[in-house]
Amino acid sequence: MPDVAGFFYPRTATGRSSLLPPPPWHYCGDVLTVEYRTDPARVAELLPEPLAPAPDDPGAVALIWADWQSCGEAGDELLDPVRAQYRECFAVMRCSFAGRLYSRCVYIWVDTDFALVRGLHQGYPKKLGSIHQTRPHPFGRAAPRIAAGGRFAGTLAAADRRLAQVVVTLRDQVSAAGFVNAHPMAHHRWMPSIEKGAPDALDELIASRSASFEGGPAWRGDAVLELFDSPTEELSRLAVGEIIAGYYQQVAVTWDGGTVLAGRTSPP
Amino acid sequence: MPDVAGFFYPRTATGRSSLLPPPPWHYCGDVLTVEYRTDPARVAELLPEPLAPAPDDPGAVALIWADWQSCGEAGDELLDPVRAQYRECFAVMRCSFAGRLYSRCVYIWVDTDFALVRGLHQGYPKKLGSIHQTRPHPFGRAAPRIAAGGRFAGTLAAADRRLAQVVVTLRDQVSAAGFVNAHPMAHHRWMPSIEKGAPDALDELIASRSASFEGGPAWRGDAVLELFDSPTEELSRLAVGEIIAGYYQQVAVTWDGGTVLAGRTSPP
Amino acid sequence: MPDVAGFFYPRTATGRSSLLPPPPWHYCGDVLTVEYRTDPARVAELLPEPLAPAPDDPGAVALIWADWQSCGEAGDELLDPVRAQYRECFAVMRCSFAGRLYSRCVYIWVDTDFALVRGLHQGYPKKLGSIHQTRPHPFGRAAPRIAAGGRFAGTLAAADRRLAQVVVTLRDQVSAAGFVNAHPMAHHRWMPSIEKGAPDALDELIASRSASFEGGPAWRGDAVLELFDSPTEELSRLAVGEIIAGYYQQVAVTWDGGTVLAGRTSPP
Amino acid sequence: MPDVAGFFYPRTATGRSSLLPPPPWHYCGDVLTVEYRTDPARVAELLPEPLAPAPDDPGAVALIWADWQSCGEAGDELLDPVRAQYRECFAVMRCSFAGRLYSRCVYIWVDTDFALVRGLHQGYPKKLGSIHQTRPHPFGRAAPRIAAGGRFAGTLAAADRRLAQVVVTLRDQVSAAGFVNAHPMAHHRWMPSIEKGAPDALDELIASRSASFEGGPAWRGDAVLELFDSPTEELSRLAVGEIIAGYYQQVAVTWDGGTVLAGRTSPP
Repeated sequence: MPDVAGFFYPRTATGRSSLLPPPPWHYCGDVLTVEYRTDPARVAELLPEPLAPAPDDPGAVALIWADWQSCGEAGDELLDPVRAQYRECFAVMRCSFAGRLYSRCVYIWVDTDFALVRGLHQGYPKKLGSIHQTRPHPFGRAAPRIAAGGRFAGTLAAADRRLAQVVVTLRDQVSAAGFVNAHPMAHHRWMPSIEKGAPDALDELIASRSASFEGGPAWRGDAVLELFDSPTEELSRLAVGEIIAGYYQQVAVTWDGGTVLAGRTSPP
Repeated sequence: MPDVAGFFYPRTATGRSSLLPPPPWHYCGDVLTVEYRTDPARVAELLPEPLAPAPDDPGAVALIWADWQSCGEAGDELLDPVRAQYRECFAVMRCSFAGRLYSRCVYIWVDTDFALVRGLHQGYPKKLGSIHQTRPHPFGRAAPRIAAGGRFAGTLAAADRRLAQVVVTLRDQVSAAGFVNAHPMAHHRWMPSIEKGAPDALDELIASRSASFEGGPAWRGDAVLELFDSPTEELSRLAVGEIIAGYYQQVAVTWDGGTVLAGRTSPP
Repeated sequence: MPDVAGFFYPRTATGRSSLLPPPPWHYCGDVLTVEYRTDPARVAELLPEPLAPAPDDPGAVALIWADWQSCGEAGDELLDPVRAQYRECFAVMRCSFAGRLYSRCVYIWVDTDFALVRGLHQGYPKKLGSIHQTRPHPFGRAAPRIAAGGRFAGTLAAADRRLAQVVVTLRDQVSAAGFVNAHPMAHHRWMPSIEKGAPDALDELIASRSASFEGGPAWRGDAVLELFDSPTEELSRLAVGEIIAGYYQQVAVTWDGGTVLAGRTSPP
Repeated sequence: MPDVAGFFYPRTATGRSSLLPPPPWHYCGDVLTVEYRTDPARVAELLPEPLAPAPDDPGAVALIWADWQSCGEAGDELLDPVRAQYRECFAVMRCSFAGRLYSRCVYIWVDTDFALVRGLHQGYPKKLGSIHQTRPHPFGRAAPRIAAGGRFAGTLAAADRRLAQVVVTLRDQVSAAGFVNAHPMAHHRWMPSIEKGAPDALDELIASRSASFEGGPAWRGDAVLELFDSPTEELSRLAVGEIIAGYYQQVAVTWDGGTVLAGRTSPP
């Protein structure tokens, strides 16, 4: 009897209804970033062992909005775009492991199920949220251009509460849209045991990075960022100190798996 | 005592919380159109007196998807984009009145309250729906380019049922993105009486058109269109006969009011 | 040629796809109310002429959450419940006109299109929002009972911002679930002119009330209410002073039209 | 340095923003079930080894709608109900393992993130969907009573397409609301490896059942069930043959973990 097929749930005889196709996963979208410094202790407290804070600028944080279209290798989703488009907002910090620098996403909100579950596979701590981001357009008064003076806002809410909002006013082109999210990601993949009191059934430290990257000019600008308290969220604990800069860039990336850095190697 | 202020509900002492600012309203977005011919009798049955069918090509219909960003004159919405972005899908036919050709929207679905109510003001028969449209992007494999060979899909659902889906493959640039939605709109503004059995409290035939228009190249292509039945909708009654063409264009428009063509004209 | 049919948009040959059936409209649901006193000037400023504040207790306000199921006379919606269920939160005050007391809804948020448009017909100043309300259930620990000690919360958000939240702890049964929303409603039905600068095309003061009412016991309790500021809303301008009481009641109502109190009365 | 805390993502210094509290999880709600027979081969193809079909009535399937309110041990969610309420629709079959009968959920759709992720922990193959279910109410014409003659509908959509709809007309009380979902659940907990081509990083067969159950009368009735095809789903592959019965019951359950039946015991 052939076993069930499918990269993710549900696994069936055909594999056709899996919520996710197998990687590679292709993405294109517009990315609005604000980098700032917070108390380094607030960064350090989100880094479980064996991760350590980055040696330089250990309080640097990036809060990133992205308006994505994505698909699997076959690209079917692009012709049924309810399955292709989503928005996200996520907080990234840097850490070090085994003498190397990594980026690490500590909070992230998306607005579709396939993005949420894709993230869980990759070790992103995803929740659903309501994310909005000003779109550029080449014509008229109802949109900025991607050019000096263009103003782009990002907003984030979850559970009916506004959590963050930023306005970035573009000023000049730079060589890179920030430095905090510039390293391979070091993420934990955790799944609690089904048995109460037992250790996590899955507990891995993994690394992954884009298999390919293509992008337009990176724009830098001034940013005004506000974070708001919520009983269910801790983003505002990464209180905004000095703003480093805001950034805007159109990008395309492909993600095609990662590697296990450290993990439960001893079984139950 | 000063009266309440506000273009639309709620009207308050300050007018600040009105769901709509007064016109002008600015829009920019990407428009995906498919034009086709249906039985002219299906068009005629949607044209109440004093409207008459267009004398030439009386069965022509346009089904149009648009992915919009919009704002009032002050543009505040662009920095709080949850109030600026929406998507819509609408069916347009042509009609004649007093010797002149008009376009007329007979069905339309949007996905925000401000767009719904703005439409009611303009005489668009708006409902809420779920509308998705492939987005172009300059980079990567997860989006088409606005260029020959680019494939763009539009989908529409309401009340949990898929109502329409189209795929347009761009082929060449043309002088205009179709002819059905090219005239001033002739719409009825109706509000039933609060008193049962009484005639409509508002019953006007109005005309309006864009106060300004700016656009990129109009692309024409091949289109495959499917309409689906639903117990709550009649879009599929405009059954797809011959496909005329698909179109794609990036546009910006400003709407700034219209004129009463016929209707209740004597005030209290 | 027969004219188009339908109580509301879209009006078609059959009338089948009208967003609303004609009244009567039947509703059943659970209603969570908090009554409190605010500065009477804040109430008065929301009452356009010819309305005047209620002579007694002119600062009394009711903020009401309701979790509804509703249908037209044929009841089809009950077997396709995506068209039957919605939630709302609304603010009510009292006013006087021609020597009689009325209730008046000054702000209201709902979460479906049919409820929004039904409200516009009735003169309710509806917007879309996200409304949640604790549900009673006869079993288990995940719900209160409708009984002394039962705790019920209501929350309201719009445009991604929490606007209000209340917690009511039931204490005893009373003869009525408050007094602010106990009168016929006096509402304005406004539709701006399509012509800029012209007076409203529809400007009526109408009265309506339930054609029938059925209800379970009215419970009274202690209430804790918080209102939050938002750039798009003015609910928090009705600042919470003294709390009068919280209430909970299961009700069923039928609405079947109203009467014009004052307004544009001469037809074309 | 203390490690990060939290039952699920995100894990933080305080654990406060975890999407899920640790079990026990309490639920109360109304459950609408339809049981029917499909081709036993369609059931068998969804049972990976070491599971086998149930020896008797191997084509029996239950499709279940539930309208839930849920919370963790502290119950905070009940006073912020946007975090407590959700709806789901799921397909259940029976299987045997090691000489014992189990129930197994093969498809499930929910409408919140906490329910989706709670399900992944429990091995439910959850996606997001749009689920609606007629609600009973003690008053008026806009709701059925839980009594003979009461008619309850359930509908399911995902990715903008209607997938299933049922109408159940209650007839009599019975001792149990069906037999297909009456056993402990046998679920696989799968997480693909982050490394391409490697075996699943988590691959466990687990069992779990309610730690406690409380319920009202089980009503049985006639059911009319329709399933619809979708390019992204395979529910309709469980084609409706003979209808066994429809059921309605109000229940409360507590879930408090499970046990590993079989799993990857040999590590990487």
